[in-house]
Amino acid sequence: MTEIKRIESGQRMSQAVVANGMVWLAGQVGAPGKPAADQTRAILAQIDTLLKKAGTDKTRIVSAQIWVADMAADFAAMNSVWDTWVPQGSAPARATGEARLATPDYKVEIIVTAVL
Amino acid sequence: MTEIKRIESGQRMSQAVVANGMVWLAGQVGAPGKPAADQTRAILAQIDTLLKKAGTDKTRIVSAQIWVADMAADFAAMNSVWDTWVPQGSAPARATGEARLATPDYKVEIIVTAVL
Amino acid sequence: MTEIKRIESGQRMSQAVVANGMVWLAGQVGAPGKPAADQTRAILAQIDTLLKKAGTDKTRIVSAQIWVADMAADFAAMNSVWDTWVPQGSAPARATGEARLATPDYKVEIIVTAVL
Repeated sequence: MTEIKRIESGQRMSQAVVANGMVWLAGQVGAPGKPAADQTRAILAQIDTLLKKAGTDKTRIVSAQIWVADMAADFAAMNSVWDTWVPQGSAPARATGEARLATPDYKVEIIVTAVL
Repeated sequence: MTEIKRIESGQRMSQAVVANGMVWLAGQVGAPGKPAADQTRAILAQIDTLLKKAGTDKTRIVSAQIWVADMAADFAAMNSVWDTWVPQGSAPARATGEARLATPDYKVEIIVTAVL
Repeated sequence: MTEIKRIESGQRMSQAVVANGMVWLAGQVGAPGKPAADQTRAILAQIDTLLKKAGTDKTRIVSAQIWVADMAADFAAMNSVWDTWVPQGSAPARATGEARLATPDYKVEIIVTAVL
């Protein structure tokens, strides 16, 4: 039975869960009300921090889901920040869809899974 | 090559698939037409049942995705049921987004992954 | 530390990532502007190809997420193609929600995870 380690764990969710040689991150949002590029930068910084706490890093992300609240308005801005952040040669499998988020202040949410 | 075990398996989907020390559940919906809180309760009961059949339980869920058809109307009701159900100290990584579901009768869908 | 193999890897995403005995595929879309059934057929053919490159096949898919841009219009068409493609006795856990995609030309996107 694999041991489970939870990071920044609350009653509703943990920000990261490590088990079975993998880490699952909660959907990250950031900088409510700010432009999509700023929110994306904040999200990716949080992902870096959580992956480090889990004992891995962004070169070891296997999959990412990106939810954009308004694809027509913000898909390009999100991508421009994303493309800069992804380490060359280490891009994860990715899917991007439009979904409104917990409140209208949030324009982007990113969910990643990595291996240790 | 890891063995794959399928639970409540039909032509379109299996309700749970066990492989590689993990279990993936189909998106669970429940109690069509009922209020979001009732649907969430039904969903979480089904998740308990499926995890048990897979040989694990809700303390070993690593990640959850929650889709709410009308976030403004039902996010709070879903959360109140969710928060009560999550075992203290064992919250999964979670992401919640707005998505209309298979039919308008469904207000909430929850997808979980757990380790054995 | 598990080795990571990336397939059809670009700056933004890899089409498939193999690690830890599993493979994660990027969200597949196909045949922009064509009817949903045609798009679904193209998607499932791409999934077959990517799974083969990863060293596995559709009998070993553990989970699938399907995003349909207009559920009322295209859920049935997508399902009819899906149901024919799924190998009898090997259906994955599945969840389907409505999400608009990268551009309005895309009607369906499918994300799968498989074991080797």
